[in-house]
Amino acid sequence: MSQRTSSLPTIVSGKNALKTFQTWLRKNAPEQTVILCDSNTLQHCWPVLLQHVPQLSSAALIETDPGESSKSLEIAAYIWQTLTEQAATRKTLLINLGGGMITDLGGFCAALYKRGIPFVHIPTSLLAMVDAGVGGKTAIDFMAVKNLIGTFSNPVSTIIDPVFLKTLPAREWLCGEAEVYKIAAVANASLWRTLTKKGFSPELIEKAVRTKQRIVKKDPYEKNSRQCLNFGHTIGHALESAKQGTLLHGEAIAIGMYIETELAAQLKLITREWCVEMQQALMWRFDTVLQPIDGEALRHFLVHDKKNQKHKLVFALPAQPGHCHINVVATPTQIQKAIAAYNKCMK
Amino acid sequence: MSQRTSSLPTIVSGKNALKTFQTWLRKNAPEQTVILCDSNTLQHCWPVLLQHVPQLSSAALIETDPGESSKSLEIAAYIWQTLTEQAATRKTLLINLGGGMITDLGGFCAALYKRGIPFVHIPTSLLAMVDAGVGGKTAIDFMAVKNLIGTFSNPVSTIIDPVFLKTLPAREWLCGEAEVYKIAAVANASLWRTLTKKGFSPELIEKAVRTKQRIVKKDPYEKNSRQCLNFGHTIGHALESAKQGTLLHGEAIAIGMYIETELAAQLKLITREWCVEMQQALMWRFDTVLQPIDGEALRHFLVHDKKNQKHKLVFALPAQPGHCHINVVATPTQIQKAIAAYNKCMK
Repeated sequence: MSQRTSSLPTIVSGKNALKTFQTWLRKNAPEQTVILCDSNTLQHCWPVLLQHVPQLSSAALIETDPGESSKSLEIAAYIWQTLTEQAATRKTLLINLGGGMITDLGGFCAALYKRGIPFVHIPTSLLAMVDAGVGGKTAIDFMAVKNLIGTFSNPVSTIIDPVFLKTLPAREWLCGEAEVYKIAAVANASLWRTLTKKGFSPELIEKAVRTKQRIVKKDPYEKNSRQCLNFGHTIGHALESAKQGTLLHGEAIAIGMYIETELAAQLKLITREWCVEMQQALMWRFDTVLQPIDGEALRHFLVHDKKNQKHKLVFALPAQPGHCHINVVATPTQIQKAIAAYNKCMK
Repeated sequence: MSQRTSSLPTIVSGKNALKTFQTWLRKNAPEQTVILCDSNTLQHCWPVLLQHVPQLSSAALIETDPGESSKSLEIAAYIWQTLTEQAATRKTLLINLGGGMITDLGGFCAALYKRGIPFVHIPTSLLAMVDAGVGGKTAIDFMAVKNLIGTFSNPVSTIIDPVFLKTLPAREWLCGEAEVYKIAAVANASLWRTLTKKGFSPELIEKAVRTKQRIVKKDPYEKNSRQCLNFGHTIGHALESAKQGTLLHGEAIAIGMYIETELAAQLKLITREWCVEMQQALMWRFDTVLQPIDGEALRHFLVHDKKNQKHKLVFALPAQPGHCHINVVATPTQIQKAIAAYNKCMK
């Protein structure tokens, strides 16, 4: 079994996704299967997976602690050590069962072990379904910088089954919605209109995933247009790093989008009307998340953003609805001004 | 500057290679350049490089200890830490100045830092010129297994200038020749004839490199035909791991080729005549290296070879001159028999 002989689509989504995976697995039985999960997904998602795909009962399990702190070189080394001890070969299949932490970490380990073994993502959070699980990015954090060490490497398939969302905590759910709002704002005006008029519903997952897939296909290595997906992420990643795990990724991105929308308006890249519409929509949905932040604490982390060029801070900022400006350079003063305006609104 | 805008050929070789690199660097000045070397190449090769490419005087230097033990996750982490501290961006150029250890390690670090920064190999040993520097493989060793963790990632260019060979120790020289013999045996019968009739000379470097390049181009990810380059490497890598640094890569490969040629004859994959011709040629050139080995000590390392499938040990073995069989499965008994035959000849 290899990525090339697989007939499983790149993305399998919907209520029968696990069933499709089960059928494929029966026909393409890998010589060895290893499942990576954290203690949360081991408890809540592994029984669900086993119920739908019973032949996985003989698979080996690798368990990590939940949370961003597991996306480290030390845990990657632990996973490689376990794979080695189990004599995993280039044909061993790694299944990453979990949220974005697990898919990023598991994808990273699979991409590098013996220069690449096949892996399947089964994202169990809304965020991972619409974001980390799709697009071929893998990474670990390093020196407190998010995703500093990583690769572009595609899973055999990403299995998106809403059955896992039943046990998803509300806070995690909101994180996923933040990425759906982002995708809509910069790449799908029709999805944005649906979100603002009717709010989010699980039926929109497919729409968000297909939009992201279209963007990734056009520019897989993020040389140009894919950078639109970084909207909210320059501020968001720095904030996430500065908060050291107390803020979830989607929460940081919600705040990042608000501030970067403000920055776009300041730089006259969007009309004040579109700025206000976006900020109102964000405020309406993410009011529990949008809190004042410490702009000074972000400076160090902004400097290490992967998108930077020659010590200039680079942003992907909204243009008209469903479109985006990439490679926008902003000065530290402009950034702090946007943060100050945000903090003022949140008081 | 990025890999895509570069007009430097994939491989620049010959007496003017450094001059060509110097001209390219003047036209494509990267915003930051970092040079990776070990203490040997810092002493012997860095002054030579500076003399030919004086504008590198402002580049930052990262120095490691020489030898295979530096190809570790710990040293990779040290390099990433240094790049982070120097605020290296996605447009920073990493120049890997050294033998195969430096090109494997530096390529690995560059491929993963911020999901990939451009890098240039300047191999300074014959072995790295004809082997590690060409073909896009990067790796570190892990749990005493050679190249267990790695990627396929191509440098902007590999600069092969014979000026560095002037200071190459005799033992290192022989290691490079072992890989040239290997390339010739499995992929270039005309080169093999030249080697056996006239011996190796630096003019043959280009021929060996072009042969390897042709093989890599046809099968960059080693799914099929590129596996021919693994001739001598199943035994060789296991031996190198078992000897823990006391045996150089090329020395292990020379022994590996001899034993695997024996195995090919046992399995009736080659005629006894071609077997004898190859073994005589190897004995003639590598007599100082070919010593009895402990077959038992190899068992553990053979099990972890990346080429293995379903606990079967897989080999690339010679066919007729200039050709190769890939995916040959041999039993532990057959392997030990070939080792015993080798040991008998070496007594």
